[in-house]
Parts: sequence; C-alpha cells; structure tokens
Amino acid sequence: MTLTTPCTPPGTMELLPRQQIVFQRMMDTIRRGFELYGFLPIETPVFEVSDVLLSKSGGDTEKQVYFVQSTGALEQGHRPGLALRFDLTVPLARYVAEHEAELAFPFRRYQIQRVYRGERAQRGRYREFYQCDIDVIGKDTLPLAFDAEIPAVIHTLFTELGVGPFRIHFNNRKVLQGLFEGLGIQEPERRMAVLRQVDRLDKVGPDGVRGLLMGDELGLAGDVADRILELAGIRGPAADVLARLGAMAGRPGANPSFVQGARELEEVVSALRAFAVPESHWSINLGIARGLDYYTGTVYETFLTDHPGMGSVCSGGRYDNLASQYTRSRLPGVGISIGLTRLFYVLSEAGLAAPGPSTVKVLVTQFDAALLPEYLALAADLRSHGVNTDIHLEPAKLGRQLKYADRTGIPFAVVMGPDEMAGGEATVKDLRTGAQVRVPRGELAGYFQGRE
Amino acid sequence: MTLTTPCTPPGTMELLPRQQIVFQRMMDTIRRGFELYGFLPIETPVFEVSDVLLSKSGGDTEKQVYFVQSTGALEQGHRPGLALRFDLTVPLARYVAEHEAELAFPFRRYQIQRVYRGERAQRGRYREFYQCDIDVIGKDTLPLAFDAEIPAVIHTLFTELGVGPFRIHFNNRKVLQGLFEGLGIQEPERRMAVLRQVDRLDKVGPDGVRGLLMGDELGLAGDVADRILELAGIRGPAADVLARLGAMAGRPGANPSFVQGARELEEVVSALRAFAVPESHWSINLGIARGLDYYTGTVYETFLTDHPGMGSVCSGGRYDNLASQYTRSRLPGVGISIGLTRLFYVLSEAGLAAPGPSTVKVLVTQFDAALLPEYLALAADLRSHGVNTDIHLEPAKLGRQLKYADRTGIPFAVVMGPDEMAGGEATVKDLRTGAQVRVPRGELAGYFQGRE
Repeated sequence: MTLTTPCTPPGTMELLPRQQIVFQRMMDTIRRGFELYGFLPIETPVFEVSDVLLSKSGGDTEKQVYFVQSTGALEQGHRPGLALRFDLTVPLARYVAEHEAELAFPFRRYQIQRVYRGERAQRGRYREFYQCDIDVIGKDTLPLAFDAEIPAVIHTLFTELGVGPFRIHFNNRKVLQGLFEGLGIQEPERRMAVLRQVDRLDKVGPDGVRGLLMGDELGLAGDVADRILELAGIRGPAADVLARLGAMAGRPGANPSFVQGARELEEVVSALRAFAVPESHWSINLGIARGLDYYTGTVYETFLTDHPGMGSVCSGGRYDNLASQYTRSRLPGVGISIGLTRLFYVLSEAGLAAPGPSTVKVLVTQFDAALLPEYLALAADLRSHGVNTDIHLEPAKLGRQLKYADRTGIPFAVVMGPDEMAGGEATVKDLRTGAQVRVPRGELAGYFQGRE
Repeated sequence: MTLTTPCTPPGTMELLPRQQIVFQRMMDTIRRGFELYGFLPIETPVFEVSDVLLSKSGGDTEKQVYFVQSTGALEQGHRPGLALRFDLTVPLARYVAEHEAELAFPFRRYQIQRVYRGERAQRGRYREFYQCDIDVIGKDTLPLAFDAEIPAVIHTLFTELGVGPFRIHFNNRKVLQGLFEGLGIQEPERRMAVLRQVDRLDKVGPDGVRGLLMGDELGLAGDVADRILELAGIRGPAADVLARLGAMAGRPGANPSFVQGARELEEVVSALRAFAVPESHWSINLGIARGLDYYTGTVYETFLTDHPGMGSVCSGGRYDNLASQYTRSRLPGVGISIGLTRLFYVLSEAGLAAPGPSTVKVLVTQFDAALLPEYLALAADLRSHGVNTDIHLEPAKLGRQLKYADRTGIPFAVVMGPDEMAGGEATVKDLRTGAQVRVPRGELAGYFQGRE
C-alpha cells in the first residue's frame, strides 16, 4: 500500500502533549480570570452563513476569508454558502442581534475559540489561531466604569499568567479625533487615516510618523504634524497627563470632542483607582490609536516590559454600536482580545513557555507482572481520591518505565514489589530529585494530594 | 441601511449563556475524568490537507466532507486543498504518524474538539458537534489490561456527569467473527456484512435481524441465522456468560478466533474486577457488534438505563492498526468517543440539562451612585479572594438589578446603602430563597467562599 505523508496543514500550530499542557494552563488561567470578573461563556459555530458573516466587512478581511462547502455543493458549482469566522467580534454581533430578546443587558460575555485567516504562510503567522475575547454590551448606553474594569481584568490575567512585568497603555480616541478636528482635518475618513499613521508610532518612531503625515497621501503641514506628535508623545504619571489635558481642554475654543475625551480619561482613571489596579501597571498613552475603524472611545494595548518587540499582547477598546448591520438596536460595548496562539508562540521563542510537569501526577509502575491486579487496584484507589494517575500496563524493565514517566513529565512513580507488598507499603520516587520514600498503602492518596 | 438577518447556520448548536454553562460543566467533568486516568491533551487543526484526510476513507464519509478554500483559491477554480475533520480518529492517526518519534508509547491521548459532517439538516442531527475521545496507542503491542481500563474511565465519567443509572456493554468481535467463520462464512467482507446486521439487534429486534440475515443480500440458512442469534442473545451475569463461552470454546474443533475472543473477554473481566468497577455497571453483551470496520477485538457501548431510546452514549473499541495509511509502524489501540453535542441535546429534551446556577456567584448592586467607588472596591476585594463577581455598573432601581441577577442565575446579591456603610457591613441576599443577612465587610469574601 502506498503511504500518504502525514502533515499538518501550513499555518497551523500543533503541539506535542507537554506543550499542549502549557497552552491549556494558559487558557484555563484566562478563562478563570474572565469568570472571576463575571463574564459568561458563549461559543459560536466555526462557520457562519457567508452573507451574514460578510455583510459589513470588505477589502482586506474578505480576501482572507476561508469559504466552506460540502461535497454536494462543490459538485453543483455553487458559491460557497458558509465561511469560517475571521474574528470573534462579528460572530458576537450576530449572536447578540439574533438572541437579543433572550439576553440580559449589560451582557458580559467571554469567548475562547479559534479564528481563521488566509494569511500568507510565514513563521509566527497563523491561519488558525485562538482568540480569547471579553466584551460588555449595553443596550442604548454603557457607563464609563466598564472601561475601567477592562484594565482590572487584564491586570489580574497577566499577573496570573506569570509572564513577567507588563503595562496596560490606554488612551481615548476622542482626544486624538478632537485634536485633529481642531487642527482643521474635517473629513472623518481623513481623520481615520491620520489615526492609522499615529498608530504606527511604536513601529516607525516619531520621525517616521512625521514623514507619513506630511507625505503624499495626507499632506499635512509640518506644524500640524508637530502638534499631533507633541500630543501623542506626552508621557508621565497619570495625574500629570490629565493635568496637561485638562489645561488644553480648558482653553477657550477647545474642541468639544477633545474636551469630552479628556473628561472620559479622567473618569476612567478614577474608577481604575477604586478598582485598586496599581498604577505601576498602567499608563495613559496618548500615542495609542488602534488601527480598527470601529473604536470610538477608550482604547487599550498591553506590553510585556521585558519583551517590547512582541508588540501589544492584549488590545481592544470601546465602540458605539456593535451590530448595526443586523439590528436597529443601539448596542455600545467595550472589550479586549488576546491572541493566545501568537502569544504562546512568542513566549515559546523567548523560552518562557517551556514544558512543566504533566497533568499526570503519578505513574504506577509494574514491578512484577504477577502483581498486576494489585497495581490496578492501587491505581483505582488513587484515582478515586482525585489523584491523576497513569499505570504502566505494558510489562517492561523498571528503568524503562521510569524513563517513560520522566519523558512525559510525570513527577512521581510508585514502585511496589513483593518486599513492599509484605510490609503493606509502596515506594514513592520523586523523578525530579531522585529521592524516594516508603509510604503505607493506605496513606498514598493523601501523600499525593498534598504534593505538587 | 438595509439590515442583514442574523441567523446561526443550520445544523449547528448555539447556546444561550446559561445553557452554555451547563454544557461547559459537562465538558469540564469529562476532561477531569480523562486527566484522572492519565490521558494527555492534544488538539489538531480544524482542517486537514484534503489528500491527507481522505487518503483512506471513501463512500459515505467522503460525501459528507466539508471542503475549505481561501478567497484566492476560490477565484482560481482550484479543487479545495483543505477539508474539515469529520471525526477525531483520522486526525489522531495523522498526528501519531507525524510525531511518532517525539511521542512516548503507550500514548494515552484525549481530545475534545468539534467535528464536521455535511448531514441532511434535521432536528437533533448536527453538522458541527463535539466529540470527546480517548485512545491509548501502543507500538507493536498493547496489553489487554487497557481494554479493561476503558470501562473504568466510562464508569467514573458517567457517575460524575450525574445523568442517572447507566450500563457499559461490551463484547469481543473475535467471538462473533469466530462463530461466523465456524458456521462457514469464509469471506471477511461477508462476515463484516453479517456483523453490521447483528449490530441492528437493538433497533430491529431478533426477528428483524433474522430476516436480514436470511434476506437476498446475505442469504444465510435459517439454522445458521438461529445459531448467530442464539449467541448474540446470551445474557446474564458475567460469570455465567463466560462459563457458556468457555464450554463452547472447549469443544473439539472450536474456531481459534472464537476461542481467542472468549479468552480475551475473560481477561478483561478479571482486570475490570481488579479496577473495582462495580458489576452493576457493566455486562458482557454478545450482541454488541459496532458498525465500523476497523474494530478487531473488544467493543463497547454505553446506555442510560432510564433512556434506552437514546442509543449508545459512549462507544468504541480495540483496533489492530491505527495509521496504516500513513506509516509502516504497527500501532494497535483502544479508545472510546462521546458525542457530547448529541448527548447534551438528548439530555435537554429529556429535561436533564436545565440551567443551574451561573458561573457568577455574586452581584454587587449599585444602591447609591455616589457610593460607586465603594462598590468597585468591594467587587475588587471579592475577586481578589477568588469569588466570581459581577457588578451592576449601570445605575438602575434595586429591583431591576436583582431581577438581572435572578435572570442570569447569580445566586447572591450584595446591597450596601449608607446605612450598611455606617455599620461597616453589607446586606447579602440569597436570590433563591429571598433570605437576607448582614455581614461585616471584612468577612464578606470568606462568607461566599464557603457557600454554593
């Protein structure tokens, strides 16, 4: 028989079990954090009806969409009726619009699922990747305090993830939009184009952005570009930044959007303090713009202090209306997304996602095939006490069995020969240290329950 | 703007948050059970390269496959290069063959992911559904004790799932195959066809199967059909069934496959007893055949005693060689699969999956907008103690806030007005009973930690 070469599709991340366990622990930590903050789980189908999925989007996104069709439809040459989701935001909009009458608002939802984009395959770029999203959706209105709760969630999550020091940067788009308007950039599309250039500050630096702003596409005057860069460059303690914004907002003729944005930032900062998120972990950063069109207020990015090159590992913002393509209800919201597959990839590259202990705590070894029923009973006992237990059912030399445990990251092995049997005991071996100890059989489960 | 009607694709299950929580709890229970027995997690991409996925299968399966292509490939009229997985077994075969050198054998893996089949849309039939699979894969050999561990896992899982009484039925295909051979049915394909008819015993009854066996396709003689039905109909305590099989196997000229199957059943039963799986929860059932071709030894089905119409809710078996299409290594295995989406659907229809309490334990209400910072601090404190907490940031009448909690299944609400503030206390309301109690603020977290 001719063999088919088994290969994972390009652009997907497939992990060995020990890596999968690390990934899973991160995902569990994120989920626990989301639930701690009162977010409720939803899941949506991996595909949506194409016309529903693509009712709003266009341009680049649509080019990257994966279409899905059954064998039958393929044969009949139909345009594919289904398409894989490319983010979790459009499915959320569809979900909320479809189930509006059955949901309680404000609706806090979390969703941890994979999304699909037909990216050009290259290292570190994925066509299939996990997004971990939270959003709060209001009906008609949504108080600003929600904008302050988001950094509190991020703070808890990234502290629990244990990926080293991090800092949440946030801004309010109204401040930038107001400044642009005040500088005479009237058309909303043009302001959005300026915003997208400011968003590149991190990547190309102030001089780079200055060039882009004054370039052919936008053609801003040098002093206008300077004013934009001056504002976007303001740094310092939140109180100082707010004071400077307050002074600018207080000037006669200040742009109303700017004034509103400054006020919102102030309110978010004060709620953040009530939530006790330490100021060491957040900053107002007037250079944060976010590329996406739909944000209308607060915007967030999160950086790992020791890995600035990673870019933002958790981003999001406030939007005025989630689902205008599906419903006439006004659904303002605020949310964030963690691209977990990419985060995991980058952490792995930096050596920060190395395999740790297995989910399995104990390997019951098979010292003597004649004692197999004893080993089965021992494993059953440990399991009935909640101790994750593997049992080496394959007869093999003890050394090979211990190697199997070591290789798969199982921390403890239990060995029981006729000698131990006679004493009603078992030998427990810690495979990380090599230390071993005899434990009475009746106390084994308790021994493992108390140990990592 | 014209609105697009938001609709979930047909044949998918999409749940409201309170149902999703029930579903999630079932999935968590299954995962915990798998980990308890030492199985390791893996995940594979939702799609596989079409030629890799379909290298072995044919017939009906292929007709139900969903193909995937990016916008670009669509425009160029290419045959779709990717296809959604239709089960977790082919991806496992591909995974093990691809990563063989990096895995430790016997390889115990669990996998909980969705699979896709282009079924005709009808009530209770899904095109997207979860499978929860475990398999142990050996290299060259795999001891029979693994076949006994599988019912132990099922027993733990279904006990923990709390879906009422259940019973695991198992058989060994060698017994049936040996009987057929002994009755003169020589061609393997014909034996498989007979097996498939015996597999319908539950659905069409003995007379129905007799008719099928004697019908045009198979044309067995009446006495041959009777012998088959006689064996398949043997019921009773395991010891009695084994005794009858033993007697038949002991006759001169007994078919070697039959003898081997009977011996394997005996060994599995004795290991099952060592694993302490109570006999009230399992039976040898010589009528269990399983439709799929690749099983070669033990086969399992699991039935909920109070819901026989559901059919098997957890099935599987032993196979000789997992991945012959991808590798020349011999990889015998044994495994089971739970079709969770269908199980959840059937349980819901039977009223056994009703929404319970939310993942959120406490709603901090907003009694007085002026005290908002106090509420934020209170929520932050509860969360820092691991209590899942929502906070009503939208100002509203208290009655409406409590209704929100009740509707979303949050069991407790905290109310704190100027009165409670003055006394350093908060009022806790149990929304299920209406009971309320005052608790000192410093003791609130502890109060909730100890309560469901």
